[in-house]
Amino acid sequence: MSLETAGLLQDGEAVCLQWSDGKTARFHAIWLRDNAQDPETRASGNGQRLITILDIPANTRLASAEIKAGDQLHLRMTPENKELVFSGNWLRKRIYDTPAVTDRGWCPKHITTWDAGLNASVPTVDLNQAKADRTSLANWLEGVRRYGLAIMTGLSTDSGSLCEVAELFGYIRETNYGRWFEVRSEINPVNLAYTGLGLQAHTDNPYRDPVPTLQLLACLENSADGGESMVVDGFKAAQVLRQESPESFDLLARFPVRFEYAGADDIRLRAKRPMIELGPDGELIAIRFNNRSSAPYTDIPFESMADYYRAYRKLAEIIERPEMEVTFKMKAGDLFIVDNTRVLHARKGFSGAGTRWLQGCYADKDGLLSTLAALEEKMQEAAE
Amino acid sequence: MSLETAGLLQDGEAVCLQWSDGKTARFHAIWLRDNAQDPETRASGNGQRLITILDIPANTRLASAEIKAGDQLHLRMTPENKELVFSGNWLRKRIYDTPAVTDRGWCPKHITTWDAGLNASVPTVDLNQAKADRTSLANWLEGVRRYGLAIMTGLSTDSGSLCEVAELFGYIRETNYGRWFEVRSEINPVNLAYTGLGLQAHTDNPYRDPVPTLQLLACLENSADGGESMVVDGFKAAQVLRQESPESFDLLARFPVRFEYAGADDIRLRAKRPMIELGPDGELIAIRFNNRSSAPYTDIPFESMADYYRAYRKLAEIIERPEMEVTFKMKAGDLFIVDNTRVLHARKGFSGAGTRWLQGCYADKDGLLSTLAALEEKMQEAAE
Repeated sequence: MSLETAGLLQDGEAVCLQWSDGKTARFHAIWLRDNAQDPETRASGNGQRLITILDIPANTRLASAEIKAGDQLHLRMTPENKELVFSGNWLRKRIYDTPAVTDRGWCPKHITTWDAGLNASVPTVDLNQAKADRTSLANWLEGVRRYGLAIMTGLSTDSGSLCEVAELFGYIRETNYGRWFEVRSEINPVNLAYTGLGLQAHTDNPYRDPVPTLQLLACLENSADGGESMVVDGFKAAQVLRQESPESFDLLARFPVRFEYAGADDIRLRAKRPMIELGPDGELIAIRFNNRSSAPYTDIPFESMADYYRAYRKLAEIIERPEMEVTFKMKAGDLFIVDNTRVLHARKGFSGAGTRWLQGCYADKDGLLSTLAALEEKMQEAAE
Repeated sequence: MSLETAGLLQDGEAVCLQWSDGKTARFHAIWLRDNAQDPETRASGNGQRLITILDIPANTRLASAEIKAGDQLHLRMTPENKELVFSGNWLRKRIYDTPAVTDRGWCPKHITTWDAGLNASVPTVDLNQAKADRTSLANWLEGVRRYGLAIMTGLSTDSGSLCEVAELFGYIRETNYGRWFEVRSEINPVNLAYTGLGLQAHTDNPYRDPVPTLQLLACLENSADGGESMVVDGFKAAQVLRQESPESFDLLARFPVRFEYAGADDIRLRAKRPMIELGPDGELIAIRFNNRSSAPYTDIPFESMADYYRAYRKLAEIIERPEMEVTFKMKAGDLFIVDNTRVLHARKGFSGAGTRWLQGCYADKDGLLSTLAALEEKMQEAAE
């Protein structure tokens, strides 16, 4: 795709570009100057910006704009009298001259929401395959980014082996529960997770800010009756709620609630965040949902509290619908990972003569998404 | 303070309480039922809720309300025919019958914003004192909560000794930079922090989501010329911006920007968050500000981009004002900690014959605030 025309606008405050397919986009002089790619603006080794906004004159304008070699935009900036060069392709990928988003609760295109229909097609890989083949690993990580859920098989049943999975793509988030923790029935459990009780679908640790953004659960033994795992896409649940009751969606996004965990003497974890978190541009950012650790809600005014509870109940009802839920029974050597800002997990109660022994750990999405982006870039380069 | 009256409202949908000092507050039946403290609702050991919202009848009402023994509120719930008992004191601490907040950019009362006036009174403790005396530790942690900034002295200059400080109150957040990292001049630095360049005041790692919420920097040697440390309260800067230019504050809160770090082949860290993050109730949640890792902003529509850049410049100008800045020169054995969601740090350039050798690490506020709350509770109990 080549650049066809470049015309100055508003006395050089911006430039309007047109590509050979007819696409047009405007870019501001100040934006272009700030994002200059020359070695005085960006460090050539690590790519970091060497200047601050205060190094750029406030009255920065474009004195001229010229297209060379089909794709190279040459710009002369005033008052610095500096020449900048951008590739049309680089600019095309960074167009911001688009209609403002007004939708509330939208998801970016690398995310696909799901319901029970995903049951047969949860992204799954064998650990040895993921270690041996970077394409397999990238596909699996892409599944986590897209669905917030993936399964890995073939783990050793040695204690702590799940850490090896976290270290494939990132770093463990250590907490008061340790680098990893046991999930099995205990006498005097500090957490109801460590009993045979069924657990309602929930996100983990909403009483923590920042919340752990990934949870890994590995199975070492599962011979008990029951104890099936269920997962629900909280983003899908929020979308269904918005469709069926927009005012309920709005209430859960508009007010923060409180979460608390005080299961041991030296732990008083507390957080205040909404059940449905939206970015300032309306992007669906996170779901927090946990009956066990919900503290009294004190940030919702009296006039809205009854409606808030009705909205909360509606979301809970949607989450409980069988058509929302993917169910599986873990066996020794299996692991599943969830995006804990999005996907809720639950388990059926268990009992009987056998044992259900899981181990869990937390990690964060920054590392996973970075590893995936780096792998994708290398695969892209190899394909070119 | 004793409870004086308890009167049912709206056919038992709520109760209105009055205390002996005249204070009144209304509580909904559904809220009271959800927050019942009896052992069928809350696990007696770990305090977690045993029921879900779906276990509570949607038509829950109060059949009667009676005050006993001055402070005990006895409630009869229908249709469950269940008796609940609350202490008036417990309820008083959880009143939500208050005017809705409409202010944007407010801070809770445990936070005090500051400027250069804090220079002489930054919370400071000696490591051995903090280890030996829990009141000293609690006061120091309270300082971190209040100011987002504190200094510790008396660390060993052994490599990695800063980890001991993080472990006093919480857990290290490991990243691609390691459990801790060296901050000194390097050949071919992967990050401009590892040079002798001055660095504009910034928050660390805004390209990471979740961002590390605490940063610790310890000094092992500082004989170079220059290299002074400066810190600025980003919450104060946001408040000043709001006062001087409310429309600029609004722009920086309304639109997300992008941050990126790609300083090594296998790292592609990217995040999209606003420079000024507000909770849905307008609480000031976080500041992200970093010229080095700001990626091209593509989520601000063309019509707002020029104004956005003017707002960004205004915030930068405020941050650079000498009256905003606390300055100190670290010496061997000193450490400072900042709330990385709030306090920006900077350094002057350094050079010459000597060496400036710092080590940094990240940790998270959840652990720090939990440890502080548990210490405060124990000190409160001891005082009673």
